[in-house]
Amino acid sequence: MDNYYGPGRNHLFVPGPVNIPEQVLRAMNRNNEDYRSPAIPAMTKVLLEDVKKIFKTIAGTPFLIPTTGTGAWESALTNTLSPGDRIVSFLIGQFSLLWIDQMQRLNFNVDVIESDWGAGANLEVLGSKLAADTGHTIKAICIVHNETATGVTNNLAAVRKLLDHYQHPALFLVDGVSSICALDFRMDEWGVDVALTGSQKALSLPTGMGIVCASPKALEASKTSKSVRVFFDWKDYLKFYKMGTFWPYTPSIQLLYGLREALDLLFEEGLDNVIERHTRLAKATRLAVEAWGLKNCTQKEEWFSDTVTAVVVPSYIDSSEIVRRGWKRYNLSLGLGLNKVAGKVFRIGHLGNLNELQLLGCLAGVEMILKDVGYPVKLGSGVAAACAFLQNSIPMIPSRI
Amino acid sequence: MDNYYGPGRNHLFVPGPVNIPEQVLRAMNRNNEDYRSPAIPAMTKVLLEDVKKIFKTIAGTPFLIPTTGTGAWESALTNTLSPGDRIVSFLIGQFSLLWIDQMQRLNFNVDVIESDWGAGANLEVLGSKLAADTGHTIKAICIVHNETATGVTNNLAAVRKLLDHYQHPALFLVDGVSSICALDFRMDEWGVDVALTGSQKALSLPTGMGIVCASPKALEASKTSKSVRVFFDWKDYLKFYKMGTFWPYTPSIQLLYGLREALDLLFEEGLDNVIERHTRLAKATRLAVEAWGLKNCTQKEEWFSDTVTAVVVPSYIDSSEIVRRGWKRYNLSLGLGLNKVAGKVFRIGHLGNLNELQLLGCLAGVEMILKDVGYPVKLGSGVAAACAFLQNSIPMIPSRI
Amino acid sequence: MDNYYGPGRNHLFVPGPVNIPEQVLRAMNRNNEDYRSPAIPAMTKVLLEDVKKIFKTIAGTPFLIPTTGTGAWESALTNTLSPGDRIVSFLIGQFSLLWIDQMQRLNFNVDVIESDWGAGANLEVLGSKLAADTGHTIKAICIVHNETATGVTNNLAAVRKLLDHYQHPALFLVDGVSSICALDFRMDEWGVDVALTGSQKALSLPTGMGIVCASPKALEASKTSKSVRVFFDWKDYLKFYKMGTFWPYTPSIQLLYGLREALDLLFEEGLDNVIERHTRLAKATRLAVEAWGLKNCTQKEEWFSDTVTAVVVPSYIDSSEIVRRGWKRYNLSLGLGLNKVAGKVFRIGHLGNLNELQLLGCLAGVEMILKDVGYPVKLGSGVAAACAFLQNSIPMIPSRI
Amino acid sequence: MDNYYGPGRNHLFVPGPVNIPEQVLRAMNRNNEDYRSPAIPAMTKVLLEDVKKIFKTIAGTPFLIPTTGTGAWESALTNTLSPGDRIVSFLIGQFSLLWIDQMQRLNFNVDVIESDWGAGANLEVLGSKLAADTGHTIKAICIVHNETATGVTNNLAAVRKLLDHYQHPALFLVDGVSSICALDFRMDEWGVDVALTGSQKALSLPTGMGIVCASPKALEASKTSKSVRVFFDWKDYLKFYKMGTFWPYTPSIQLLYGLREALDLLFEEGLDNVIERHTRLAKATRLAVEAWGLKNCTQKEEWFSDTVTAVVVPSYIDSSEIVRRGWKRYNLSLGLGLNKVAGKVFRIGHLGNLNELQLLGCLAGVEMILKDVGYPVKLGSGVAAACAFLQNSIPMIPSRI
Repeated sequence: MDNYYGPGRNHLFVPGPVNIPEQVLRAMNRNNEDYRSPAIPAMTKVLLEDVKKIFKTIAGTPFLIPTTGTGAWESALTNTLSPGDRIVSFLIGQFSLLWIDQMQRLNFNVDVIESDWGAGANLEVLGSKLAADTGHTIKAICIVHNETATGVTNNLAAVRKLLDHYQHPALFLVDGVSSICALDFRMDEWGVDVALTGSQKALSLPTGMGIVCASPKALEASKTSKSVRVFFDWKDYLKFYKMGTFWPYTPSIQLLYGLREALDLLFEEGLDNVIERHTRLAKATRLAVEAWGLKNCTQKEEWFSDTVTAVVVPSYIDSSEIVRRGWKRYNLSLGLGLNKVAGKVFRIGHLGNLNELQLLGCLAGVEMILKDVGYPVKLGSGVAAACAFLQNSIPMIPSRI
Repeated sequence: MDNYYGPGRNHLFVPGPVNIPEQVLRAMNRNNEDYRSPAIPAMTKVLLEDVKKIFKTIAGTPFLIPTTGTGAWESALTNTLSPGDRIVSFLIGQFSLLWIDQMQRLNFNVDVIESDWGAGANLEVLGSKLAADTGHTIKAICIVHNETATGVTNNLAAVRKLLDHYQHPALFLVDGVSSICALDFRMDEWGVDVALTGSQKALSLPTGMGIVCASPKALEASKTSKSVRVFFDWKDYLKFYKMGTFWPYTPSIQLLYGLREALDLLFEEGLDNVIERHTRLAKATRLAVEAWGLKNCTQKEEWFSDTVTAVVVPSYIDSSEIVRRGWKRYNLSLGLGLNKVAGKVFRIGHLGNLNELQLLGCLAGVEMILKDVGYPVKLGSGVAAACAFLQNSIPMIPSRI
Repeated sequence: MDNYYGPGRNHLFVPGPVNIPEQVLRAMNRNNEDYRSPAIPAMTKVLLEDVKKIFKTIAGTPFLIPTTGTGAWESALTNTLSPGDRIVSFLIGQFSLLWIDQMQRLNFNVDVIESDWGAGANLEVLGSKLAADTGHTIKAICIVHNETATGVTNNLAAVRKLLDHYQHPALFLVDGVSSICALDFRMDEWGVDVALTGSQKALSLPTGMGIVCASPKALEASKTSKSVRVFFDWKDYLKFYKMGTFWPYTPSIQLLYGLREALDLLFEEGLDNVIERHTRLAKATRLAVEAWGLKNCTQKEEWFSDTVTAVVVPSYIDSSEIVRRGWKRYNLSLGLGLNKVAGKVFRIGHLGNLNELQLLGCLAGVEMILKDVGYPVKLGSGVAAACAFLQNSIPMIPSRI
Repeated sequence: MDNYYGPGRNHLFVPGPVNIPEQVLRAMNRNNEDYRSPAIPAMTKVLLEDVKKIFKTIAGTPFLIPTTGTGAWESALTNTLSPGDRIVSFLIGQFSLLWIDQMQRLNFNVDVIESDWGAGANLEVLGSKLAADTGHTIKAICIVHNETATGVTNNLAAVRKLLDHYQHPALFLVDGVSSICALDFRMDEWGVDVALTGSQKALSLPTGMGIVCASPKALEASKTSKSVRVFFDWKDYLKFYKMGTFWPYTPSIQLLYGLREALDLLFEEGLDNVIERHTRLAKATRLAVEAWGLKNCTQKEEWFSDTVTAVVVPSYIDSSEIVRRGWKRYNLSLGLGLNKVAGKVFRIGHLGNLNELQLLGCLAGVEMILKDVGYPVKLGSGVAAACAFLQNSIPMIPSRI
């Protein structure tokens, strides 16, 4: 079981799965239950109401699907679109690439707007396409809110503005896997039609629950979508919602109790405070990167991600060696560079139930690794820069004042 | 969290999700990990080898999919068959019904052989269909090994014999959700092409892992299947198997460690001893039912299920009331009657990591409930009958002799 | 770790340590904490108030000592008495024997009133001694409320009545190890001066916390007691209580949170309902023993214990073999006969967080063991007798009505 | 339960109780068991053998007592000495003070050798006393190996050398509470007669087990010691050791399994590597303190403690404010200054199952706190100094090479 044992805690800074707080581990430490007893439906009913808050939606309908982010993508697409439908999507990194690959394999007609890896979605091109599409052949805009591979956050409000400007009826589908519960996200205000995330990201749970939220317009679309689907079909969920039993098939009892606790922790801290904490941790990370003399993979400040920072290493260094060494020497888990940026970037995930001193331990570790691999970093420089900012901005813990 | 608190343990006798042994709860009580570190692939590699043993296959290729039994069904069908393909399947209860519904919604051409609820698959009709199908229009035989709704176990060896007799090349797809790890199951010997189960059944884990195992013939079929699929596509798994990273998307770290422990417990007890234990518990249950003067929903002994017993109640009793009362008064969770047998049967699940005294507590509880609802049971009669059999047949616990 | 693995749950029916409810296991599943932070004192303050409720005292002062019942005994004696002090105590079984042995080794002058094992404290003799002791040489009456070795409950109210009758100022010290939280116990009403219990008994926690509660009179006595003591000295606790930091040395963080949860569960069920549940389970057990044709070790009904039943076996059977066989064949843990009754009785503990179906599983197990060892029990007879009573008396679970 | 909730992990750097590794939490996550079944004695037998390794003794006899360090002290003293016996002991800080206080209250005749707080034991004075004591009135030398209040480690080998030099037969009793499993400790080589520690220190368990190890000479002394004792009496343990049942009263099942796992982790890492890790973490901490321009409370390098560093703050700062702020703003738990050094020092505990990046997070936190309270620290300076040393000295994790 512990074939790779090292003393002390693992420092988990991949951008997912992230650290699970002890409170959630406790809540999940339980036997199975009959999900057809009155307890689970009663609990589910409240969970479904509460989970809407993380999407900032009142009108939306959430689905808690026993699947991963990839499954949540499939659920979003197949319930709202029909084979052959034209989708405009943005290729800006590995996860947008994988989603587009899924769209194509699901037989949608994907109109890809590509950017450099490190840049955000090209909204100008989107604007042109919308302007040209007077016949409304575009059925959906699919966008990854936060591209986990490059640390790029896209401007969802701007996408909505364009759609509104052209009075375009396309559905607005958003992958919020590495954003929801960590970045500002406003489903109703931004007119998002389907938003989705995975339990192992900012919710700080184990993997296994894809959380999908559908606007009334998306639900309407699901009634006529011709995509073949069963496991991911919202119809079955809606049928059981109506019956009050809620589950078309067996949910994970442990994840339900875990979600309950995760939401309670989020609400106790306050969702806005949670988002502010992510902003703070991300800012500190970027200041460290700057102090090390390294480049952020993200090309412009407007796209900086507050959940993951992809750090570009000099060409004489293999970033995979940094990740390997973190694990082998420091019990530190960093994110690899993926695909086009493999070997070129390493990633620091700073999302979920995390605090400043945890991050500073990670940054100190990265400094030592950089030195290990031959980069002339000034030890302490990144931590110093981060601390200078954090010491000014960390709030008192409200419950302890 | 404990809105439905009652003192003592819940007695969980639904036919899934089942009791999780403490050893497995312990193994799962852990933080997330980076699934791209060397640890998880190394562990996965061994798990994939070991999981084959529960299918009794050497030739098969297993997939550990973050989904439920419903998703495992979809994986089995969409990877091996193309829309319009003719499937012969058996409708004998709620779960075979749901699988057939899935087949139809996935646009397969399902040739349904229906039996009474309580009877097994009609293999005579299957024989006729195979005999008549000289053109090999039947692409697959889909069968539920153990129908959880009625407590009926089908004879898989007999199905294989028929296929062989007619030298029919149809794929042989088996839902082993409530059988594998509890009933005798021989994938290679019986020429099963796809076998599947869910983690929350006889493996005694939480819900969340669909375990699917494909024969070489099924893998071959997957190369040409035209069914649209991404999340459930074996191709992605096979690609990552080849790379040695094993996971096309994020697995549940906790379920992997849980599976490791669950398999270790199975192997320590010995798979054949596990099966024998299920036979013993089932026999004891049926003897109790008989002693109560009630009827088993299963019509013939050859179909008796060793994982679940569906008990028929007299017409003046609503079986749902029995289940409700079990939960409300005795902290006992029994299975409801479903669909056609709703109100008419209640179900005792006796599968997974369970022992005799646990079952006897349940049987004593059922007796009291029967009395509660007005059935003139002789209290102690079922327990006496079960004990008479068990006292003669329970082996010593090998580790304690 | 699992060198003695057997499938399914262990059926734990020794009279302590007892089953820990899942809620308590969850609460204890946590890292250490700084016990000098504001959190632990704040929590302790409330715990000390709440723990008084299980003693039914308002005037008492509780101490949560990191020790076992044996240490709690020592704490009770050394804080209130001086070497050479005359104590009247009752020898009725193994635990009263051990306490008396402790008293003697602590250099008290113990005036022992002995009864047969199976009988209760001889209060007539006590009365005579009190009557004779006009000079008040008796400094304390020490009594075990419930003798765990023989299943005998003493009448504490009667002891108080005698003390009052003779206007005797002796301290009244009570071992409530296997009674408090399970049997009716009224510290203030009965004028108990020191009452004590251990966490692993009816509180259903792990071993490790000795809970001692002192009346104002006992506290007063502690100021002049000449017994040498440091670890068990109440003075250090009282000093830290005054300072508001509460702990003279490090407590178990996990047991504190466990105690919090255990008390919450007790209060949720209602202490009187908890006691009634114990009465019910004990009655059911005695009815089973009777049905088996066996004798209760307890000689008179007035002494019947509602937390443990000691069952006398025929002389041709070795009761230790019953216990061994329970463990080796049925994963059932029963209590051995101790000392004078070794080989002659086995014990069924029915205390703590336990429900009826758990007990019935145990009773069914005992029947099979009896058969195994050659006693001509009618299988099912005990369960039938227990069920007949329970089916009439088990209340609905309030939270589930 | 979470009245003091703050996001992310608590950074626990008090010198005990310390962080519990996840492996140990898992091992302890279990129901109670019958401690009279064959399983617990079998496990205990091996534990007693294995626990000797942490003392580096072959000749010693260990006792696993359900108590704290304070109780372990009492066990050491009362089993080996008689009231009135002359003890030479060293007063160098709060814990040596408390032990001396205990000795006095237990009626021993304590000959105290006092040093400044921050200095080690004055061995010159000890030498004179031994030289003068030709009549062997000194029955024991009692010394705290590592004074947790001031971060001072005493030289035990030198004490032994003095005893040998003067051929003095005094018993050599050592408090190894904050040293054993973290600092070099050699019971047999140094002729230690009683050594003791507590589970919540370097063993990284919850509080609740006092581990005491007695040399043959100490055992011999226990036969004639006239100190009154029962709970702490070794005699009872030895009696049960002989019987092979091992426990005179109920142990904590959870702590036994926790100890098993804790020892397994220690042995897997290698006790010498564990000690080296403590040396490394301590050195890094001292380098940080130096870089901050602050003084170590420990007056000479020879006394530097590798488990706790007491940092002296400038007189214009209240060190308690540093500890308070750590908790309130950074979720960092530091040790308060105690007694004579209250308000003057704060303490960083760096013992137990801990790694470098955890420590660096703590050091970064301390820097920010220092800034918060008005000390003109150069942010990053301590971390830089620590990293410069660590990056050169951290070994690869053997299991991951």
